[in-house]
Amino acid sequence: MGQDEPVKVAIAGATGYAGQELLRLLARHPGAAVTAAMGSSATSTPRELPALAHLWSGHVVPLDLEVLCSEADAVFLALPEEASAALAPQLLARGRRVFDLSGAFRLRDDSARAKWYPHAKQLPEGTLYGLTEHARQSIASARLISCPGCYPTAAALALKPLVSAGLVAGDIVIDAKSGVSGAGKTPSERTHFSEAHGSVSAYKVFAHRHGAEIEQEVGRPVTFVPHLVPLDRGILETIYVRVPPGTTDATIAAAYAAAYTGSCFVRITGTTLPVIKQVVWSNFCDIGWALDEPTNRLVVVSVIDNLVKGAAGQAVQNFNVAYGFNERTGLV
Amino acid sequence: MGQDEPVKVAIAGATGYAGQELLRLLARHPGAAVTAAMGSSATSTPRELPALAHLWSGHVVPLDLEVLCSEADAVFLALPEEASAALAPQLLARGRRVFDLSGAFRLRDDSARAKWYPHAKQLPEGTLYGLTEHARQSIASARLISCPGCYPTAAALALKPLVSAGLVAGDIVIDAKSGVSGAGKTPSERTHFSEAHGSVSAYKVFAHRHGAEIEQEVGRPVTFVPHLVPLDRGILETIYVRVPPGTTDATIAAAYAAAYTGSCFVRITGTTLPVIKQVVWSNFCDIGWALDEPTNRLVVVSVIDNLVKGAAGQAVQNFNVAYGFNERTGLV
Amino acid sequence: MGQDEPVKVAIAGATGYAGQELLRLLARHPGAAVTAAMGSSATSTPRELPALAHLWSGHVVPLDLEVLCSEADAVFLALPEEASAALAPQLLARGRRVFDLSGAFRLRDDSARAKWYPHAKQLPEGTLYGLTEHARQSIASARLISCPGCYPTAAALALKPLVSAGLVAGDIVIDAKSGVSGAGKTPSERTHFSEAHGSVSAYKVFAHRHGAEIEQEVGRPVTFVPHLVPLDRGILETIYVRVPPGTTDATIAAAYAAAYTGSCFVRITGTTLPVIKQVVWSNFCDIGWALDEPTNRLVVVSVIDNLVKGAAGQAVQNFNVAYGFNERTGLV
Amino acid sequence: MGQDEPVKVAIAGATGYAGQELLRLLARHPGAAVTAAMGSSATSTPRELPALAHLWSGHVVPLDLEVLCSEADAVFLALPEEASAALAPQLLARGRRVFDLSGAFRLRDDSARAKWYPHAKQLPEGTLYGLTEHARQSIASARLISCPGCYPTAAALALKPLVSAGLVAGDIVIDAKSGVSGAGKTPSERTHFSEAHGSVSAYKVFAHRHGAEIEQEVGRPVTFVPHLVPLDRGILETIYVRVPPGTTDATIAAAYAAAYTGSCFVRITGTTLPVIKQVVWSNFCDIGWALDEPTNRLVVVSVIDNLVKGAAGQAVQNFNVAYGFNERTGLV
Repeated sequence: MGQDEPVKVAIAGATGYAGQELLRLLARHPGAAVTAAMGSSATSTPRELPALAHLWSGHVVPLDLEVLCSEADAVFLALPEEASAALAPQLLARGRRVFDLSGAFRLRDDSARAKWYPHAKQLPEGTLYGLTEHARQSIASARLISCPGCYPTAAALALKPLVSAGLVAGDIVIDAKSGVSGAGKTPSERTHFSEAHGSVSAYKVFAHRHGAEIEQEVGRPVTFVPHLVPLDRGILETIYVRVPPGTTDATIAAAYAAAYTGSCFVRITGTTLPVIKQVVWSNFCDIGWALDEPTNRLVVVSVIDNLVKGAAGQAVQNFNVAYGFNERTGLV
Repeated sequence: MGQDEPVKVAIAGATGYAGQELLRLLARHPGAAVTAAMGSSATSTPRELPALAHLWSGHVVPLDLEVLCSEADAVFLALPEEASAALAPQLLARGRRVFDLSGAFRLRDDSARAKWYPHAKQLPEGTLYGLTEHARQSIASARLISCPGCYPTAAALALKPLVSAGLVAGDIVIDAKSGVSGAGKTPSERTHFSEAHGSVSAYKVFAHRHGAEIEQEVGRPVTFVPHLVPLDRGILETIYVRVPPGTTDATIAAAYAAAYTGSCFVRITGTTLPVIKQVVWSNFCDIGWALDEPTNRLVVVSVIDNLVKGAAGQAVQNFNVAYGFNERTGLV
Repeated sequence: MGQDEPVKVAIAGATGYAGQELLRLLARHPGAAVTAAMGSSATSTPRELPALAHLWSGHVVPLDLEVLCSEADAVFLALPEEASAALAPQLLARGRRVFDLSGAFRLRDDSARAKWYPHAKQLPEGTLYGLTEHARQSIASARLISCPGCYPTAAALALKPLVSAGLVAGDIVIDAKSGVSGAGKTPSERTHFSEAHGSVSAYKVFAHRHGAEIEQEVGRPVTFVPHLVPLDRGILETIYVRVPPGTTDATIAAAYAAAYTGSCFVRITGTTLPVIKQVVWSNFCDIGWALDEPTNRLVVVSVIDNLVKGAAGQAVQNFNVAYGFNERTGLV
Repeated sequence: MGQDEPVKVAIAGATGYAGQELLRLLARHPGAAVTAAMGSSATSTPRELPALAHLWSGHVVPLDLEVLCSEADAVFLALPEEASAALAPQLLARGRRVFDLSGAFRLRDDSARAKWYPHAKQLPEGTLYGLTEHARQSIASARLISCPGCYPTAAALALKPLVSAGLVAGDIVIDAKSGVSGAGKTPSERTHFSEAHGSVSAYKVFAHRHGAEIEQEVGRPVTFVPHLVPLDRGILETIYVRVPPGTTDATIAAAYAAAYTGSCFVRITGTTLPVIKQVVWSNFCDIGWALDEPTNRLVVVSVIDNLVKGAAGQAVQNFNVAYGFNERTGLV
């Protein structure tokens, strides 16, 4: 199917890492016409994006609601949570469809949201948590697609099929290793090259807001510890669970096959463990595992590119589903 | 105290990463005289070590038992397990004291050793597992000091005081991230720059022989998963346990203080989590933690330089204790 | 224009870094159908390429001339020089069009070729040196398109317009910094992670065969020194020349505009110097400069992704021109 | 020789990368007692340095001239140029000996200094440019030892012996590649991990103040282009010159032998080119070369650790000479 005319799309927050990745993907999307790319505030300085020259011919201009509404049918928000929380309802009220990459609308539980993302007091009607593979059937009718965080994408894709199949028997530990682009574009001591290079650090233990999002999607409490590793793009999550006695590799393979047959962006690698290198600059999530049958311990490894499947790519994947394009359009 | 004359020391396996680090440390050690540095076999090509020029003025020569015995009182073995298993008993029989960096003599249980390190059929009399901080009192009387593996060093230093204090209530998960020098000097696909750079990989899940060594030292079963991360030197281990109800930061701090007060190379950083960068090129092991009191979950982070505290540095530390030098000599 | 039916293409040498990049690009090219992907010899082990799963559904099979000829109109060779030198003439004799990524046919001068690439005794009729921007008009009629080396691509794109405009007055020094993927996929000591990480090395000074290729294309003697830098993809070349008195930034800008207006993959950044990051995973070559007017010294900086514009991307760009596709097809 | 009592030393600017390296070196120096470590201003927040715990037991306190003078005989300044320019004369007036790591006092020519380092209007009496190997005889009588910049150290050690021997016939091009720690500890866009990782950039072409310093020390005009490469510590400079006809490897070797025999920290590697990895965390400068006799082109490669021989290590080396210690004390 698809559209006869390209869908007019605009991006707010086009200069951050996720925003630039969105622009790169949408600029070459045959079913989308980028009509505006804006900074993250009304006072952003207009600027060019040299890395995108000859791919996209515009300038990034200050944020402007009127222009967004008049020039775009679909609006992608790659903004800080607070800005998204304020802007999305206005765009919805003006009839735009919104793909939000911030965390503002990800948590359905009001008290959890009040704790971790306090700016969206309520979820607008038509809000959908858009982990594409788990929400595909509902995307076409949604108006605000809240795109998942990078860590929750890798975790929920790996864990939900196991939990649904009754294969997770005990505590869940998620040890996540992320490249530094996940920390955004603003320089800081922690992301200064000389601090991050040659080092690994755990951070926000018991205090990262993606923990709540993972628990929402997985439906179980988890111990989630993110780490910064010295690479730019990519996340690898090592997930530790206990499975019921009698579980075999075939049991696990069947659970994943049931969940993802027909999902082109999830690749189940079986007992060959995936590595970050094989998914960077792509929208794939690769999942493999190692099972110790005598002790019923299962280790699952899930990898994505945090800027693609963990951010801009998944947003475009949702856009494809929403507008009836082939899910791969513009992504491979 | 210390010796009047420098102790004559020799190194077998001086061209690997651990071997070169040993040579670097011993060459400047005021109480040691390096009388021979040898390759890992009788047919090794004699060679220079440009990175050590002006630090050490010799050549690496082929392995030769007679020369080792005649020229050294203490012999450091940085050899493959099989070579150490064969050579160490001969050196002991000739009255030399041996500091072995291989795994050949680390496992006390014969069946475990038969599985993971099958070349040493039995442990020679006078063998000691030399994790300095846990074995200090026994080193002087040992003849074969079997130096711990890199992963077990970081794990046992972090876990043993907690287990001894009765603070480990449930399963133990150890998620370890190691720099690539831990994989040794022989090129392979996995350690090829273009494969390892920009990537992270889990490997030998449920099948790494350091797992058995950790279990021996900690006295508990553990789930141990090593990962390769794109840096050269350093290990960070994230350790997940449950603690008994009522455990506080003070409880944990007290357990570590009881274990390591007076141990200059273990630095307890409390609830500030240590990072790899702060220990590279040093013999320190830094340990910090995060405790979630409501759920009794404890995450401990332990970092070392795998080539120093995880290999050559600890061997020199053991040498210092064995010969009555200040434990820091030549190391800071 | 373009074809009604996709062009049937095959790749020989599909498992190396350039070969996999070719497969990635051609698998999504709307005008190409990959009918075969082969290893680099008749005895190559059949294998899968996990990183390309869901992009390309085949297996890499052993090299087979008959199959190549029967299943493909256009054949891409990502083989060692010697294998290309043997195979290309046979493919041409069977009427196939060949895009060769090796150095076998790059040097027109027989004595230079005898020295640097001795396996191709003569250049087959219809051979063209395929630096797209400098050869565009001749590609359609060529049968063997010899794709340039990575270093010469970045150097010739930067230098030829200046030489043609009479702007290069003195010696030419080219200091090139390359990521490690340029050294290929075979592990070696020099490309072992622990050797290359945290280091920079100059290599093959006065002895790299790309020097002769650069001199051929630029038409001047050059001093060319390649360096390995600790990144995976990308080349930055810093080029030092003297310009005639009176030369200004405008003079230089005009020379580049004359050469590259209409060339979508060359981006002239003026006095803003380009960096590697802005071209990786793309087919762009970005060129900028700094001129010191008082002393007539000019420093030009040219950057490419060695695996794309420096190898697979440029081959596909040539394919596009040869078969009448838009030059950007499959590349952006 | 050396002192009976340790020399009392203080550091101003102890929290930057060079300052911490100084503290690390001086804390273990057997002839120095660190009596104070200060921040870079009177309002610096007191702080600990976790990476130096158990090496040095103090706190970094705010900058205070009175305390500096009362507690130290020798003061090391690792401050911004402006702060050094103000503080050094006061310390000299109070009879302290000063080792300055800033650029404030490096340029002897007043007009050059006015352009590049405008804060020191004049050079105090007793000022010496302290490239140890070229200034050794004058250090004992100097009161203000202005320690060289990192790039000039590597360049002048490589070039001066050649110039002095009449071996440099034409233009000099210095293409320098530096690790990111050379840019200091303040986060910026250019040194943000995600910008610097996987990239290389040239910067300040014809506009870096180390250019003037190199020209002063070498006595010739140079074209100097610094680059940022994705590693933390280390500089490699590739130097391009023409030599007189008849120059051979032996001629060059002789020039270096004449200059550096007896200089333990300069290692001449001949026609084996040195790499950064072999000098990091050491005070060595390694120099090698490739000569093309038919064309009289010479390429020299010089490597150092920018924080050691390029900063803190050289300052300690100068301290050793100034106070009569063995030049290697505390450095190997």
